[in-house]
Amino acid sequence: MELYLVIFTFIGAAAALLFALFTARKVLKFSEGTEKMQKISASIRAGANAYLKRQYAIVLVFFAVMFLILGVMAIFGLLTPFVPFAFVTGGFFSALSGFIGMKIATLSNARTANACREGLNRGLRVAFSAGSVMGFTVVGLGLFDISLWFFLLKFVFDLTASEITGAMLTFGMGASSMALFARVGGGIFTKAADVGADLVGKVEAGIPEDDPRNPAVIADNVGDNVGDVAGMGADLYESYVGSIISASALGVAAFGGSITAMALPLILATLGIICSIFGTFLVRTKEGASQKNLLKALSRGTNFSAVLIGILSFPLVWLVLGRENWMIYFAILAGLIAGVLIGQSTEYFTSDTYRPTIKLSDSSETGSATIMISGLSLGMLSTAAPILIIAICVMVSYFVSGGGNSPSMGLYGIALAAVGMLSTLGITLATDAYGPVADNAGGIAEMAGLEPEVRERTDALDALGNTTAATGKGFAIGSAALTALALMASYIEKVQSLEGGAEKIANLSLMNPNVLIGLFVGACLPFVFAALTMESVGKAAQSVVVEVRRQFKEIPGLMEGKGEADYARCVDLCTKASLHEMILPTIVAVIVPIAVGFLLGCTGVVGMLAGATATGFLMAIFMSNSGGAWDNAKKHIEGGDHGGKGSDCHKAAVVGDTVGDPFKDTSGPAINILIKLLSMVSIVFAALVVNFGLF
Amino acid sequence: MELYLVIFTFIGAAAALLFALFTARKVLKFSEGTEKMQKISASIRAGANAYLKRQYAIVLVFFAVMFLILGVMAIFGLLTPFVPFAFVTGGFFSALSGFIGMKIATLSNARTANACREGLNRGLRVAFSAGSVMGFTVVGLGLFDISLWFFLLKFVFDLTASEITGAMLTFGMGASSMALFARVGGGIFTKAADVGADLVGKVEAGIPEDDPRNPAVIADNVGDNVGDVAGMGADLYESYVGSIISASALGVAAFGGSITAMALPLILATLGIICSIFGTFLVRTKEGASQKNLLKALSRGTNFSAVLIGILSFPLVWLVLGRENWMIYFAILAGLIAGVLIGQSTEYFTSDTYRPTIKLSDSSETGSATIMISGLSLGMLSTAAPILIIAICVMVSYFVSGGGNSPSMGLYGIALAAVGMLSTLGITLATDAYGPVADNAGGIAEMAGLEPEVRERTDALDALGNTTAATGKGFAIGSAALTALALMASYIEKVQSLEGGAEKIANLSLMNPNVLIGLFVGACLPFVFAALTMESVGKAAQSVVVEVRRQFKEIPGLMEGKGEADYARCVDLCTKASLHEMILPTIVAVIVPIAVGFLLGCTGVVGMLAGATATGFLMAIFMSNSGGAWDNAKKHIEGGDHGGKGSDCHKAAVVGDTVGDPFKDTSGPAINILIKLLSMVSIVFAALVVNFGLF
Repeated sequence: MELYLVIFTFIGAAAALLFALFTARKVLKFSEGTEKMQKISASIRAGANAYLKRQYAIVLVFFAVMFLILGVMAIFGLLTPFVPFAFVTGGFFSALSGFIGMKIATLSNARTANACREGLNRGLRVAFSAGSVMGFTVVGLGLFDISLWFFLLKFVFDLTASEITGAMLTFGMGASSMALFARVGGGIFTKAADVGADLVGKVEAGIPEDDPRNPAVIADNVGDNVGDVAGMGADLYESYVGSIISASALGVAAFGGSITAMALPLILATLGIICSIFGTFLVRTKEGASQKNLLKALSRGTNFSAVLIGILSFPLVWLVLGRENWMIYFAILAGLIAGVLIGQSTEYFTSDTYRPTIKLSDSSETGSATIMISGLSLGMLSTAAPILIIAICVMVSYFVSGGGNSPSMGLYGIALAAVGMLSTLGITLATDAYGPVADNAGGIAEMAGLEPEVRERTDALDALGNTTAATGKGFAIGSAALTALALMASYIEKVQSLEGGAEKIANLSLMNPNVLIGLFVGACLPFVFAALTMESVGKAAQSVVVEVRRQFKEIPGLMEGKGEADYARCVDLCTKASLHEMILPTIVAVIVPIAVGFLLGCTGVVGMLAGATATGFLMAIFMSNSGGAWDNAKKHIEGGDHGGKGSDCHKAAVVGDTVGDPFKDTSGPAINILIKLLSMVSIVFAALVVNFGLF
Repeated sequence: MELYLVIFTFIGAAAALLFALFTARKVLKFSEGTEKMQKISASIRAGANAYLKRQYAIVLVFFAVMFLILGVMAIFGLLTPFVPFAFVTGGFFSALSGFIGMKIATLSNARTANACREGLNRGLRVAFSAGSVMGFTVVGLGLFDISLWFFLLKFVFDLTASEITGAMLTFGMGASSMALFARVGGGIFTKAADVGADLVGKVEAGIPEDDPRNPAVIADNVGDNVGDVAGMGADLYESYVGSIISASALGVAAFGGSITAMALPLILATLGIICSIFGTFLVRTKEGASQKNLLKALSRGTNFSAVLIGILSFPLVWLVLGRENWMIYFAILAGLIAGVLIGQSTEYFTSDTYRPTIKLSDSSETGSATIMISGLSLGMLSTAAPILIIAICVMVSYFVSGGGNSPSMGLYGIALAAVGMLSTLGITLATDAYGPVADNAGGIAEMAGLEPEVRERTDALDALGNTTAATGKGFAIGSAALTALALMASYIEKVQSLEGGAEKIANLSLMNPNVLIGLFVGACLPFVFAALTMESVGKAAQSVVVEVRRQFKEIPGLMEGKGEADYARCVDLCTKASLHEMILPTIVAVIVPIAVGFLLGCTGVVGMLAGATATGFLMAIFMSNSGGAWDNAKKHIEGGDHGGKGSDCHKAAVVGDTVGDPFKDTSGPAINILIKLLSMVSIVFAALVVNFGLF
């Protein structure tokens, strides 16, 4: 049985990776276009590579230190000896996911621009294929990592199911820390460059976006790759792996050490990969298709995959868990549906085809202050629907899985809902990751001076990318909340399994002051974290602004298009600033749960996790949706409403968009990782806290 | 014993009310100044009166409906028959507090301006005396209401201690609903007028603040009175009463029905009033005093009162609770200290004598987008210190009161910390409420064309008001969090006392999905509430903008100072808009806890209360501090930095201030009331939920 399982999941992982490889080779066959386009693409690539190299150098230090700490703990018997190694592989594969995604994205941007010269459908195919490489690399590597460890722990070291999941949870911590570095560092880079380029270029100098005269333009394009691609890749690797291993761990607890309950999430993930591969073949459109048709083409792929896995998981549950547990199927279904619904709520609040964003663009009539107020309140209001959706999803998946009789069954159900939500990550991530490629293609088209219709086509692709990104964010945030809850449950299981742990975590009542105070402290963390990351973007952006202003002033003939801007300097500046700024937030995320454990005990930690999950979910939605709505309100005005580009309304909307940038692309997504990393750290250091904590 | 207690608290209440009356008569002896000043003051008064009259008419409908609902519940035995009446009196006295405060404030504004013609000290005396009338009216009426009900229930109806506190908790609900109406309605009015006046007057037309040519200028001044005075009066009445009665209720529970534990908060409040009266006599300064000396004069009064009550409460606890419980004294002390510390943290983050606000004003160099980003992150970061202060305060007051052995003793300690924090409310509120009076005085000085040095003096008073308002907010927010926790405990006590209630509320573990989902829903409420109130300000402000623009265009000679603006129309517009907009948020606050009770049961309600308290506390601090810092960054620039008034930096700072207005004066303070109202509603409807809820 176990051997079949490992073979099956290895096949799933291999299928995803081979599909990614095959797609990558297909993309690379396309031409990169004119010499100028090749040159621009090469400098973006060089900048992104240079950034990642330096990022990895810093991250390596962190991992080395953590490896030592975990190693010492293992020597003192507080951890199994596998933990330090599992931690490192988690980080390695997370980084690799981001790296491969970034590599293919920077190789595809000029190719997409060039394909757009021939037609919209061709452009879509190239960009979407690049996204697919990323999507399937993430899920493939994730499943491979899990399968590998399962194989080693089971067949080489012959551990029990519960020992296996215990060790596996710790490579989640490695993946999460790497993801946080990538998201925060990349997020600061991309937004500092973007804000800096916009503030001086668009607002002060009045030159268009992606104009080659703007010294920050290459940095801006590099940022799309290191932030939106490499950051997102590491992030979703972490979500994917985190949801699967927490479900496995809870399955072992719920079914008393049975391997089948542990296997279900793995098989589900494998099936999800296959469904996603089928889905990608449906993403194609006719030449001359409207934007609506493009969206339809993408949705056809994702919807098909979702419906297929929705159907297939029914026999799966029946066969794996037995007919007496078939109701658990509805937990998976609830997760799938909740993901779609949260995505739709995000779209409703952020797309300019719906009322909220149109009203937001109206509020630009009275200036930047009113568009700020309206955007902030739009984001805050938009938290209500996703909270209700997740609440219902949690209730349904808890009770259909039998949580009414056995709470651990219910918690397993919640974890499975998260796996269900992420089962088609291969294709949803493809539709999400294609956005930055199209965005870069537009930049290259502009800088290389291609025909206006090429830019129109890349813009059409890019606009679409904003909508699919909204849906993708729905999945990312929703699954983060569910996974965080599952990890919280795993933490409790873990503590209970430790000697003397059960009594230390017995009183989880809200009337226990340790729980309550943990809750307050945890609730505060996303606020502090958002503040730190936003402040970092502000600082880094300010240094870009100063540099761009300097170049405009000092480089002769730059504004007239005769002088050449010093792009590399801006890239270098962003790199330094963002790497410097990414360290503090990550360290906060690692140290706080340990400190809370020592001071408030295990019950305080659970309170902290609950508080952080609740406000983290809210803040992530609030910030993503405010940011998305400001972005699209600006685009809406650029489309001709309220006086169009250059009008006072447009200027007000640009202010909104600039504030929205760190909201939606730095702080918001990083909070998703934060709430999971907090649980992972708590789990890994549980033994330390139980033995040496004050309570 | 009981009779002595009632006599003692009646004397305390009478002392406060007589002191208020005596001070009011002293203020009224001052002259209102020139005919023009009298005329302006009269029109502000008329506008404020008209607003309150219409507000009360709407509130009356709400109270009538609630009275009927509660009456029907009482008939069916779900409530004691006292509840509907207690509910109404709570609302009545809360409204009366706001009304009297507003009355004296509108009678003192011209008097303060006139006194400033003679000197700064004289101006301070008048404005501070007006604030004192408000402060002592609030505490006097609060204590009177409590004493009256205690007298009736004990000596007329002869109820037990536990029945008495049960009934008394329900007049807290009346006070809270009234306070929410007053805060939200007044908050929308004042900020709509302010934002509207600023956007068109200052930004578009380029005329100074409080310029009589601005048609919204009277509305702006009316707003200060109905929002910052009447709203704050009703609000703090509610906080004061809420903290005392929840402490009494928990005292009864902790000491097994003993009247002494119930009496302690009442006696503490009475002593606090006396200490506050002494404190007010210390608030005076020499002529020609600097702003620093003015601040010293005010702090001398509040600090003296705080130290005095800090000393006196030691023998009080020893005598009332017996020597075996003297450690509870430290709970009161912890509350007092926490209030001061939160106030200092607020001041650090919002005053331009410290680094955060100075750095914020620096970020105006790169425009309104960066000052927005920095201000938002400043506010988010500023949540950390107050959370830690409250966390430590809760831990200390829980454990010194013996919570380690008996949880209900610990909860009593937490409630007493809130009472300690608010014990000197008489004087802290006086220093807080004097701000709007000074602000109005400045407006009148400007409109009446008084000498520039008068305006300078009123400005000095006003600037000081911003600092004391920060401290006042620290107390308001800190006490709200502690009181909300105490009320949560009271809710649990209440449910346990009901038939069949104990088992329904037994499982308050965070692993109970009902608790967890309640937590998520509760955490979302402050976000939604902030969104609704901000959106309302935006809407109302937009209508003011349109009207002011219309008047500038249509009234001939207005800009040249020849035509007369139609002030009344702007007042009327703000009145209508704010009254219309205050209804929805209040109804949400009343209906959600009942709905959560029905759908998720009593455990879900506790989760909701915990979630709402945690994020409510965070959001209130975030919004207040962001708003305060923007305001002072603007003032800092107006003081001459970064190019001073009219520079680009100043324009950016005005945008920040405009966004900050609804943050700090509408949404932020209203959230304080929200978190307590949710608990009060839950308590009153507990029997309904226990009998008819789904869980």
